[in-house]
Amino acid sequence: MTEILETTDGAVDTLAMASRLSDGHVADNVEILNQLDSEDAAAILLLLPVEMSVQILDKPELYYGAEIIAALPRRTAIILLTEMSSDVAADIVQQLDEPARTELMQGLDRNTRTTIENLLTYPENTAGAMMTTEFVSVPATWTVEQTLQHIRRVERTRETVYAIYVLDAFTRRLVGAVSLRRLIAGEPSTNIMDLSREPVTTLPLIDREDVARLISKHDLLAVPVVDKAGHVLGIVTVDDIIDTIIEENTEDVQKFGGMEATDEPYMQIGLLEMLKKRGGWLAVLFISEMLTASAMQYFEVELEKAIVLTLFIPLIMSSGGNSGSQATSLLIRSLALREVRLGDWWRVALRELPTGLLLGGILGLIGVVRITAWQKLGFYDYGEHWILIAVTVAAALIGVVTFGSLTGSMLPFLLQRAGFDPASASAPFVATLVDVTGLVIYFSVALLILRGTLL
Amino acid sequence: MTEILETTDGAVDTLAMASRLSDGHVADNVEILNQLDSEDAAAILLLLPVEMSVQILDKPELYYGAEIIAALPRRTAIILLTEMSSDVAADIVQQLDEPARTELMQGLDRNTRTTIENLLTYPENTAGAMMTTEFVSVPATWTVEQTLQHIRRVERTRETVYAIYVLDAFTRRLVGAVSLRRLIAGEPSTNIMDLSREPVTTLPLIDREDVARLISKHDLLAVPVVDKAGHVLGIVTVDDIIDTIIEENTEDVQKFGGMEATDEPYMQIGLLEMLKKRGGWLAVLFISEMLTASAMQYFEVELEKAIVLTLFIPLIMSSGGNSGSQATSLLIRSLALREVRLGDWWRVALRELPTGLLLGGILGLIGVVRITAWQKLGFYDYGEHWILIAVTVAAALIGVVTFGSLTGSMLPFLLQRAGFDPASASAPFVATLVDVTGLVIYFSVALLILRGTLL
Repeated sequence: MTEILETTDGAVDTLAMASRLSDGHVADNVEILNQLDSEDAAAILLLLPVEMSVQILDKPELYYGAEIIAALPRRTAIILLTEMSSDVAADIVQQLDEPARTELMQGLDRNTRTTIENLLTYPENTAGAMMTTEFVSVPATWTVEQTLQHIRRVERTRETVYAIYVLDAFTRRLVGAVSLRRLIAGEPSTNIMDLSREPVTTLPLIDREDVARLISKHDLLAVPVVDKAGHVLGIVTVDDIIDTIIEENTEDVQKFGGMEATDEPYMQIGLLEMLKKRGGWLAVLFISEMLTASAMQYFEVELEKAIVLTLFIPLIMSSGGNSGSQATSLLIRSLALREVRLGDWWRVALRELPTGLLLGGILGLIGVVRITAWQKLGFYDYGEHWILIAVTVAAALIGVVTFGSLTGSMLPFLLQRAGFDPASASAPFVATLVDVTGLVIYFSVALLILRGTLL
Repeated sequence: MTEILETTDGAVDTLAMASRLSDGHVADNVEILNQLDSEDAAAILLLLPVEMSVQILDKPELYYGAEIIAALPRRTAIILLTEMSSDVAADIVQQLDEPARTELMQGLDRNTRTTIENLLTYPENTAGAMMTTEFVSVPATWTVEQTLQHIRRVERTRETVYAIYVLDAFTRRLVGAVSLRRLIAGEPSTNIMDLSREPVTTLPLIDREDVARLISKHDLLAVPVVDKAGHVLGIVTVDDIIDTIIEENTEDVQKFGGMEATDEPYMQIGLLEMLKKRGGWLAVLFISEMLTASAMQYFEVELEKAIVLTLFIPLIMSSGGNSGSQATSLLIRSLALREVRLGDWWRVALRELPTGLLLGGILGLIGVVRITAWQKLGFYDYGEHWILIAVTVAAALIGVVTFGSLTGSMLPFLLQRAGFDPASASAPFVATLVDVTGLVIYFSVALLILRGTLL
């Protein structure tokens, strides 16, 4: 980390910082500004060349873009918002408080304002909300030479010029896409349509995860977002997609860990926010898990007769939860990557059944060895029926692990079927589901095997 | 999914399929070929234009690239390997069995063979193993016009032409990088160095996750891999990085779910492989969890006196595991995104302590309400000391949840400190760690509060 430069009285030396930042890489500058408060960051931005300030604000990695824009003189803020990528500008405007929001929007020229207003109408996490309007499009009547000249003129104001979209000269509908590499390799007098390919497109309301999948599948640098009539509304670029995939990954891991997803950095999450993100699910799981207490109350007579059975409760329950968690993690990703589809649920169940039986068998064997060893070596006395107890534990493990694998693998399917994200299935949720049933399986097996001896 | 076309006798109609595929999108063709066996896929590839076959084989999404290459006539296979991206060709050669491997390598021209051999020397998951050698480089003495002409000539044989690397004319060391967009906007007679920027580079042994972070941070389309002297060995492109990030996501979720990571699609994993990936960790966790049985044996006298205490064991243990799993998922991602660094562990601990206490307090309160309600409404009789039991459960929950949050948050730091990937921390592992201690906390609290009454 570059250190923060300070003046003799301990304040941030904005002048010295600005001079250092003007020579730095944009991404490094963003990291440095993220360590300052928004007032200081704004003071430094004011001293930087406009081009560098715009590039910094364009980075989604900048935590406090909206606060910095609000802290800048309105005139400067308006210039920067106008020069920025429209998608990031729209994000910032959305986060602005009043009166800054209205004042800035009113200061923008009509074009920029309309663009931002349009982008703000799309729901979060859709292609429409992610797209930028700074792309290159040319009429289908143009030649390679005309197109190249146009690109040279507009290059500085476009997010990418590597994909050029060809529009019908009359209807302005998208009819083709040309990559810049094909363009420069083409003959100057060639009609642009002769180099053009049928474009891969998406719709504005498509989820950002599906857009990411499309870009990744076709190795694109950008995908055009079109309306139903075929007009290009904007483009989603590959660098936005990388940010999306990383953000979705964070959300997936957090949800799988059993909490509400958050995209705030850990250190920025306030205590109350933290309690909300974690406490809600924790309480739901706790209340569901109370069923285990009910299950145990139900088997209380058996418990009192054979207290030795309680020793294995945590062991058996956790094994069910663990095997469930494994199966869920496997299927969440398989569904996300479309390796497995909703209709494949029964194929998966048919694979999980033998897998669960064998995994349970392995654990059961280890359990029997352990009980035998402790009994024979004199570490613990399980009583005269120790062999039956060992058989009970092994049989319960086979049942619980098989049930865990089946439940864990089917849960993502059920969630997807019900219209939820399969990645909402969490390890603690699976464990809770399996715990109650695991207890019932254990006690039922015990009743079956130990009736007449211990029970 | 496009259906598989068949002849009247039920075999795959390779001729009809080839004709259909030659008009299709590469990515769609890959999905179709993934459904066929490698013999049929090879027969179809043989009928397709070489350019399409090369593009198909270049896709890392193709499952059986090596099998298809092995099934093709050697002559054709050699042509395709030569035309392919060197990074994918090297991957395929690595997977080939003998004698195909030696026969094909000997058939390749010297240049291609040396390139592939060099790529194969880099360890898996490093920049060196991912890079391709098909990039554009020009001497620093050239003009914009010369460079553009060179690009037009070599465009077809390069993975990307959007980043052009400028080499010192004498030492051939990397001295600059120019984007194609800057190049076409420049004056033809300008020296290429005048448009060039200081390049962001990486080293061949850098982990692919760090390369991904670099590309994402700087929004690059490619990053050059240089040796220590500054010579460019190859480039890693953004589409490879997307595949990497997605693969790493899958691994992270699987590891967090408590199994060994696998990059094979779910349906392709054999039963034995599946048992290996899941059984190993399941057994380790099972054996560790046996400590819970030992802990309960230790408190057996107390258990026999107050069997009512066993009712809450699953509830209290699972709450500790759940809070630990939440904290682990948060910190795994924060460390991966570099939001939090190794040295921040004590700051995190200082945040998790109050969070854990409060979360435990919330659960404790719910627990007290539940016990009181069941007692007063007559659902269950916890005995004359039910208030003390409720207090015991609440106090144990506060202790266990706090311990879970602390353990869960510190585990990723410990792993990173020990040189492991913090993402190796799994929810089941955290739960197991917390279970044993959770039991000890519960019984210790019970001894403290209930001694002289129930115990």
